[in-house]
This record gives sequence, C-alpha cells and structure tokens, in this order.
Amino acid sequence: MEGFELLAPAESRQAQVDAVLDRFFSLSRKRAAPLGPEYAGLWDALEANTSGGKRMRPRMVFAAYQSLGGTDLQAAAYVGAAFELLHTALIVHDDVIDRDFSRRGVPNIAGLYRQRATASGSDAVAAEHRGISAAVIAGDLALFNSCRLVDRSGVSGEVRTRLLEVMDEALFASAAGELIDVDFSFGADMPRVDDILTMERLKTAVYSFECPLQAGAILAGASEETVATLADFGREIGIAYQIVDDVLGVFGREQETGKSTVGDLREGKRTVMIAYATTTPDWARIEPLLGRPDLTDEQAAEVRGLLISTGARSFAEGLARYYANRALARLAEAHIPHALRTELHPLADTVLRRVK
Amino acid sequence: MEGFELLAPAESRQAQVDAVLDRFFSLSRKRAAPLGPEYAGLWDALEANTSGGKRMRPRMVFAAYQSLGGTDLQAAAYVGAAFELLHTALIVHDDVIDRDFSRRGVPNIAGLYRQRATASGSDAVAAEHRGISAAVIAGDLALFNSCRLVDRSGVSGEVRTRLLEVMDEALFASAAGELIDVDFSFGADMPRVDDILTMERLKTAVYSFECPLQAGAILAGASEETVATLADFGREIGIAYQIVDDVLGVFGREQETGKSTVGDLREGKRTVMIAYATTTPDWARIEPLLGRPDLTDEQAAEVRGLLISTGARSFAEGLARYYANRALARLAEAHIPHALRTELHPLADTVLRRVK
Repeated sequence: MEGFELLAPAESRQAQVDAVLDRFFSLSRKRAAPLGPEYAGLWDALEANTSGGKRMRPRMVFAAYQSLGGTDLQAAAYVGAAFELLHTALIVHDDVIDRDFSRRGVPNIAGLYRQRATASGSDAVAAEHRGISAAVIAGDLALFNSCRLVDRSGVSGEVRTRLLEVMDEALFASAAGELIDVDFSFGADMPRVDDILTMERLKTAVYSFECPLQAGAILAGASEETVATLADFGREIGIAYQIVDDVLGVFGREQETGKSTVGDLREGKRTVMIAYATTTPDWARIEPLLGRPDLTDEQAAEVRGLLISTGARSFAEGLARYYANRALARLAEAHIPHALRTELHPLADTVLRRVK
Repeated sequence: MEGFELLAPAESRQAQVDAVLDRFFSLSRKRAAPLGPEYAGLWDALEANTSGGKRMRPRMVFAAYQSLGGTDLQAAAYVGAAFELLHTALIVHDDVIDRDFSRRGVPNIAGLYRQRATASGSDAVAAEHRGISAAVIAGDLALFNSCRLVDRSGVSGEVRTRLLEVMDEALFASAAGELIDVDFSFGADMPRVDDILTMERLKTAVYSFECPLQAGAILAGASEETVATLADFGREIGIAYQIVDDVLGVFGREQETGKSTVGDLREGKRTVMIAYATTTPDWARIEPLLGRPDLTDEQAAEVRGLLISTGARSFAEGLARYYANRALARLAEAHIPHALRTELHPLADTVLRRVK
C-alpha cells in the first residue's frame, strides 16, 4: 500500500494508534505469562504480525474523524487500533484457509510456529499442524479484541452502539467475501467481472475503506448524509484499490509493492484481468498457463504479454480509473465539508497514480 | 453432558436463550442472503451447530443469576447466549485445529461443507479445503458475536464493562489451554498430572463453568466475595467435570455419553488417567497401544483392563471426587446465599454420580 500520504500530522496519529496497540499487547503478554510457557510467545508473534504495516485502516478513521471536526484523538486511536486488529485477524485466518506459511515473503504466524516445531524435531506434517493451530488461536484473539477495543475507546451510548454495528458489518461482509473467494478457487468456471468486483468489495473494501471511514464520521458526530456518502466513497475507492492491487500483482515491481508478480498467476487467482481475458480469442493461449505452481518466469512473461495484447490489462486499469473517478465525484457533493474533501482527494489520486 | 438437571424452571430459561439465538440467526441470515449465494447457508450451518446442545453454559449463567436475586431474565438470556456462541466458536475452531470433520459422530461444519464439495465434484483435497475454510469463517462469526451479544443484552456501565471482561477472560484462558493442548500432542514426553489439570482448566473449565457463573453473579449485582467464590467453585467443579469426561471417554457407555470410547485412545489423548499410568510398572504394556488410529476393539479392551489394574482409573475418579468435594465446600461458605447453594449442589452431585 505504498504512496498513501494523507495530510499531516499523520505521524502523530500513527503514533497514537501504535501506542494503543503497544499497551494492549503489553498488557496481554503480562496476563499471558502465567498461563503456560508458550502463551506469551503467541502474543509476541501476534504483535509482530500487527506491527509494521501502513496502518491504512486507522488512517481512514482519522481522515474522516479529524476533517469532520473530531478532537478526541485518543478515542479515534482506539477505533483505528480496533480496525488494525480486525485486519490482522482476517489476514491470519486467510492464511490459515490458504495454508500459507508466509506473507509478502516473510513467515507469518503459522510459518513461525512451523519453523519452531521443525527446529525442535517435529516432522513436516506435525510442524505444519502446529503452525496452523497457532495461527487459528492467534487470529481468534485478534478478532475478539477488535470488538473489545471499540468498547475500550471510552465512547458510550448511541455512538458506541453504531461503532460496534460498523465493526460488525466489517466482519460480516468480509466473511461473505472470503466465502465467495473460497468458492471461486474451487469452481471450474471463471467468474464474471462483476462477481469478482462483488467479492473484492465484500472481502476487502468494506472493512478496509467503507467501515473505517464511516466509523470516523460516526465518532465525529457527522450527519447521516455524510456517513452514507463516505460509505459510498469508501466502496468505490476500495474497489478501485483492489483492482489496481491485482494489476500490480502481475505487472508491479516487486521491490516497490513487496508482492510477488508470479504468485497470483501461479495460484490462478480470479481477478478482473483474468475474467476479462476469458472473453478474448487468445484465452486459449492464456488459460493453460494459469494456476500452475511451477510457472516459470518465461511463462509468466508470456502471460503478461497476452494480458496486455488482449486488452485485459488496460480494461482493468480503465475500470479502476472509473471507480476512482466515481469516488472523487462523491467528494464533490455539496454536503461534504471542504476539509474532508481535501483529506480524501489525495487518496483517490494515489490509487490512480498506481495505474500509470 | 448428560444428567445436568438444575432447578426448574430450566425449560423456560432454555427457551429464552433459544429465543435470543433464534432471533440472532434469523436476522443474520436475512442480512446474509444478498451477499452471495452461499452465505445464508453458512449461517444456517452455524445455527445448526449451535442448536441442540444442553446449553450448559447458559444454565450456569442463570443458576448464579436467579439464585442471587436477578430478575431481568432477558438480559441473562443474552449473556447465556453469548457464552453459547463462544462455545460454538471454540469447538468449531478446535475441530479446524484437529482437522476433525465430525463431532460426536455427526458431521460438523467442516464435514458438511466437505460433503457438499464432494457431491459437486471436488476431489478429496479440495473438498477438505473447502470444509476447513467454511469452518474457519463460521467460527470467526460466532466468536465476534459472542462479544456483541453481551453488548446487546442492554446492560450498561460498570456491569457491562465487567461482563465483557469476563467474556474476554473466557477466551483468553481457552486460547492458552488450547495452545498447551496442541503442544501436548506434539511433545514426546507425557505431561504430568498437574500440567493436564492446568490445561483442562484453561481450555474448558474457565469458559464453561468459572466465567458463566461469574457473569451471572455480576449481572445480579452480587458481592465481590460471592463472585470470587463462584469462580473458585466453577474452577473446581469444572476440573472435576473434565476428569470425569476423560474417564468416560474410555470407560463410558457410548449410547449414554454420545462419545466414542476408543477415540481418545486412538488419538493418544493426554489425560489424567494416562499421565498416572506412565508412573506404573505396566506402562510398558499400555504405551504401545496408545495413539494408534488402527486400535482394535480387543486392544482397546486390553488398555481399559490395564488402566483399571494399574489403579489409573480409580486415581482419576478419586481426583475428580476430590475436586467436586472442594467445590461443594465453597458452597458451604457463609456468604453464599442458600438459594445459590441449593441451585448448585446438584451440579456437583451430578459430576460425582458419573464416576460411580
């Protein structure tokens, strides 16, 4: 998620969210220490998994909150931290579902525990089991505490109730999207472009953009109209973001994105580009190269060339631009305060820039 | 969990908890229907997994609550339902960790989705993956909503804060116990009896007995002393219950318990009986028969005979009686109201009766 620079003082907002998470993990580790020799270590692993990200979701919370006049930065930090824990929980469990032991080239919780089990003499099957088990448990702890951190923000009454509903919606939608994504990978048929957009929206855009923005607005006491417009903006910029993410997953520069550019091809991941390509005459040349764990760099280059020549890449980029422009149009609506427009406009620009 | 008969009107309390859960699942399914063809079905599967149990944990909540003077049965029903969802989440994810596709001889969520995938043409590996994926997602939904249901009970302020802390403790301890249990199954050494008791307490007794009883007492506005004594009672009766459960897991009558009496032996499950047996001269005859998926009924009978002749069975039963009696002694303390004593005494008796 490179390039997301929102207006200053982003660092101090980041620092506040980090402080909330530091306190949370520190307290949890202390509680954990008497409950078995390994339990504090699990919390350490969970903390390590939660740190170091770009804190995009907390940024969404703060962006809406501050530009809508919110001043209780501590409460906003708790809500932002809650979304960060939800994000951690979802990616940890996503890796369990995919049986992935690393993420962005680095061992995740399952990978860490698999390594340790192997180092202490477990065979491969037992070591993987231990890794997956630790990841299931760790994800549960993060998930439950995303609900708890909203509560511990100190807000009360109607605002608290609505914030919890937003967090509920974030998980509810993400679970729906994850289930669709799981079914995509088992279906013989290629989903249509709009099915993929639906999945991307549910699985990622809702909890990453729509809900954090809504949460920040609700916390700031914004009007229903503003909250709803932010939800729409979040949905559209989130969809644009995911389309771009998938384009970069094939065409990006690994040093910049941190993502492999063969992983999605080897996995045969259902993306807008791929769905589009199925409708083109050259699909018969692309299809045999997808979903092959042994795809070579030369073959990957061939697929990339075909995704360009069939127009699949430019279609996806155009679709991303379309959604980003729709998102920008939301910001132009009369009831959107100038500060909010100023705060979020660069977000849309950033998404658009990544498809140049 | 046969035989748990608490004072009437248990049926009406049960009905109220069921009503809360019915409403919750009904609303969730309606929300789910537009979000993909399969999502409502996942909620149906989750509801099916949550229904039909003995609702032991909600009974604990009500037992404490009503006998300590509580009258807002609706609030108690929400808290009881919250514990029931937590229980569902933990067993669903426990089955994911153990890669179990059935529980008590019936397909669980993973098993159901594996069946469906197989029926629609998936190969064995893909079908298992689909099953496990659905179970991870379903468990997440149950877990998050255990936190939410406490909140939706309508209680506020200090009571709400404390109830959420109790729910937090329930998950926190269960995760610690699950991690210990995972490590038990990978360790070459046999744990000691007290390590097993610690694991059983953390993994099961805390969320099944200690926390529901504390929650009911807190909800009723009971004194700190009473809440603490109920926690102690819950810990001790919970440990007794788990020891008995493990004895029945080898020596029980399957028609009564619904549990296999070879499953634990085949799994080589670390129990008090087994830990005790390691210290006896006949361990060399028992050890080769444990942890064998192909254990025959004759071999199982041989192990049972040895667990009796070595004194392992009677040791475990004696230990269960010890903890049950300690629990009863808690009830005899002066500050425990008569109604609470009357309510909970049969619980201890039931545990003791199962070891006769």
